[in-house]
Amino acid sequence: MNPMKMDMQACIDACLDCYKTCLSSASHHCLEAGGPHTEPAHFRLMLACAEMCRASAHLMLLGTDAHRHSCAACAEICAACADDCERVGDMDACVAACRHCADECRKMAA
Amino acid sequence: MNPMKMDMQACIDACLDCYKTCLSSASHHCLEAGGPHTEPAHFRLMLACAEMCRASAHLMLLGTDAHRHSCAACAEICAACADDCERVGDMDACVAACRHCADECRKMAA
Amino acid sequence: MNPMKMDMQACIDACLDCYKTCLSSASHHCLEAGGPHTEPAHFRLMLACAEMCRASAHLMLLGTDAHRHSCAACAEICAACADDCERVGDMDACVAACRHCADECRKMAA
Amino acid sequence: MNPMKMDMQACIDACLDCYKTCLSSASHHCLEAGGPHTEPAHFRLMLACAEMCRASAHLMLLGTDAHRHSCAACAEICAACADDCERVGDMDACVAACRHCADECRKMAA
Repeated sequence: MNPMKMDMQACIDACLDCYKTCLSSASHHCLEAGGPHTEPAHFRLMLACAEMCRASAHLMLLGTDAHRHSCAACAEICAACADDCERVGDMDACVAACRHCADECRKMAA
Repeated sequence: MNPMKMDMQACIDACLDCYKTCLSSASHHCLEAGGPHTEPAHFRLMLACAEMCRASAHLMLLGTDAHRHSCAACAEICAACADDCERVGDMDACVAACRHCADECRKMAA
Repeated sequence: MNPMKMDMQACIDACLDCYKTCLSSASHHCLEAGGPHTEPAHFRLMLACAEMCRASAHLMLLGTDAHRHSCAACAEICAACADDCERVGDMDACVAACRHCADECRKMAA
Repeated sequence: MNPMKMDMQACIDACLDCYKTCLSSASHHCLEAGGPHTEPAHFRLMLACAEMCRASAHLMLLGTDAHRHSCAACAEICAACADDCERVGDMDACVAACRHCADECRKMAA
């Protein structure tokens, strides 16, 4: 497997990890905590980030060049979600997963 | 409902229509016709376009500003899919759905 | 187009309509209203219903017999979501979309 | 973490692994090999299996009891996909991922 393909595999893993972390954190931690955690703009962004990560992984698994566009979008959305999770606080796992996914997606979008 | 919201509704409809057209065309017309219709690069792009349209509609339904990024990606991928369907030929419904979705997504990404 | 195919088209439409209604109601009406609308069990079921409807439509668009299984699952989940939306109250659009989708999916699962 | 939750985590992992294996095998191995690998009924079932696995993982990540229904459907579709991959041949990774996912889903559906 060549270096490009190892990068893509790492990005697929980062996207699916971020998808799982954001979706389960929203549905468990955020819904149970309430307050700022279910503030509409924050919660919507969590779900949007989960969906975009899932779609980016899908395009990379398909193996089409179109992944450059989905990875570019995913990098932006993950960065925004990481910032918002930091603002809300007590969301360390999401912040870490989003930052890592944003980094990996940025590389694949280049 | 204000003009912005009517634009978004039109874009959601365009995305879901393009999703349905690309996925069912790939799974019926392309698989049954074979030849250039199942050429890997073409078929993968059809499936990638379907997925990206589905994800863009999802982010707009969620109602988050993050849809700007997914719509920008979707516009690029739909335009590429339309071009490739024209090249392969006998894919008029996909070409039309992709061109329309690209136009609507470009407006929402602005 | 034969009667079977018209039934399937109606079921695809019902699934995508229920998907859109549940997802946007959860992300707009429920998150904005709070209280019982963001009670974890209720909100999770709304998101689960949206996902199952989306997947059922996908399998029917692909045109595989496997849709019988996804439609059976979708009928059960839509019925449960309709009941829960009635319990919470002020969710008439979701109740109607879920009941209709459950009916259409039950026919396709038979 | 109690035993039930460890079972669910194992099932989520099995579903996402089967999703990745079926989608990338269809888009790479099957499209490149052609012949029986792009026979419509086989290829559609591969894509249907990928989608159902993805949806089942999603419902378990959400943490709702509705996963019982999606896992029941997923077990049936994975078993059918494993059988069809054995019939076509040269699909060992898919057969293994589908059989494992069917087993895990059957436990979660009970």
